[in-house]
Amino acid sequence: MKVNVLFSPVNADELYFANKTTVVIDVLRASSTIINALSNGAKEVIPVATVEFAVKVSGGMFGGQTLLGGERNTKKIEGFAIGNSPTEYSKEVVKDKFIVFFSTNGSKAIVKAKFSENLLVCSFNNLSAVAKHLIKLKNDVEILCAGTNNHFSLEDSVCAGKLIEEMNKKKKHIEVSDSSAAAFTLYERFGNDILEMLKNTEHGKKLLENGFDKDLEFCSKLNINSVLPYFDGIKLKSLDLKKPKMRS
Amino acid sequence: MKVNVLFSPVNADELYFANKTTVVIDVLRASSTIINALSNGAKEVIPVATVEFAVKVSGGMFGGQTLLGGERNTKKIEGFAIGNSPTEYSKEVVKDKFIVFFSTNGSKAIVKAKFSENLLVCSFNNLSAVAKHLIKLKNDVEILCAGTNNHFSLEDSVCAGKLIEEMNKKKKHIEVSDSSAAAFTLYERFGNDILEMLKNTEHGKKLLENGFDKDLEFCSKLNINSVLPYFDGIKLKSLDLKKPKMRS
Repeated sequence: MKVNVLFSPVNADELYFANKTTVVIDVLRASSTIINALSNGAKEVIPVATVEFAVKVSGGMFGGQTLLGGERNTKKIEGFAIGNSPTEYSKEVVKDKFIVFFSTNGSKAIVKAKFSENLLVCSFNNLSAVAKHLIKLKNDVEILCAGTNNHFSLEDSVCAGKLIEEMNKKKKHIEVSDSSAAAFTLYERFGNDILEMLKNTEHGKKLLENGFDKDLEFCSKLNINSVLPYFDGIKLKSLDLKKPKMRS
Repeated sequence: MKVNVLFSPVNADELYFANKTTVVIDVLRASSTIINALSNGAKEVIPVATVEFAVKVSGGMFGGQTLLGGERNTKKIEGFAIGNSPTEYSKEVVKDKFIVFFSTNGSKAIVKAKFSENLLVCSFNNLSAVAKHLIKLKNDVEILCAGTNNHFSLEDSVCAGKLIEEMNKKKKHIEVSDSSAAAFTLYERFGNDILEMLKNTEHGKKLLENGFDKDLEFCSKLNINSVLPYFDGIKLKSLDLKKPKMRS
């Protein structure tokens, strides 16, 4: 079982993901937000690659049950109901809702990997559940770090490394590439204190400057959730392991 | 003094490099080859982004003093005089020659960063000389890893980390980004035995399969050369530190 890491969506084109099992990681904050939204009863999260498309898609398509959520440059977008803080996606706000979701890096990464055979969303919050599911699937895995504006981001890479470690614990002989060996090394170096690591990343510092201290705390929590956001090419839903997988 | 690392040329567009001080690293093998060629008396190395352009440029422009050099997928290109083994670029072969040079990743990375204010080529072979020069320049630095086919490669990243360590030894307070902190960590983990590290990278393994064992040995040698290949937007020449810098 081979595991490869892409440190940014620009490292591959859309067709690269065809027939692959892909895990998208955007620790700060899209992955954590999506996981929390589905955990709190949102029916679907529809990730979109542009704000314009978010507005278009949300225009009545889901019979008033739609919420526009997300951020641009860390801030809530004008006209959107909610931003990109995981804790905004509470039961009261998201239960039974369809959420059209845009974020600077995360939602675009998911859309980029849309041709994947299996696409899951991962953060520190649901990491162990994702690892367990991947081991069951037995496929080679591409871990796609959302990064920041086409650049590397440490928090996604450390999370990728932690996911590899979790998979390794559950199964021997994970075959690594240059990038997955690197991600694992970064986890070994920076993974001891996840919150401290987040506070010292470029993106983490920017969020702290903008008052999102609580988001960093939330995003640093390991395995508080076992939801598996699964993308069928259009929408993310919580994967029901009892039902056979259906792609629309 | 800030140091940032790009793990692949796809992480930035050409204009990103405008007015910046950039160091291009392609350990296996373009950087090492270019350094050795200039050290052995080649007048210029003209890096090109396509094989077609290499053939066009070499067509008589330099009065019979031109050599076509480089590789595609590790192998010498049909019609080219020399491949991409550093040791092919001996004094007997390259002295006083103009070398039009194409390689799968390295020459393209240099061309991508052509708008840089200062552009130097670095490998393990000339690393200390590059660090010394960068400290003297006092500019922020972008280290551009050539990577492999738009993907991450460990050997370039470890070399970037070693360059940061060398700069750090010569000057306190190098400011790191997410990516330069990561590169430094990878150097700490994999930099003890450079040859061993090279043998275990994806690209290193491919070169070994193709019989290029000696190239790996050559490319692993630390600070055997103090040549500073400097790119003026068209050609690479050995930087003469006594003369004022001239861009054409």
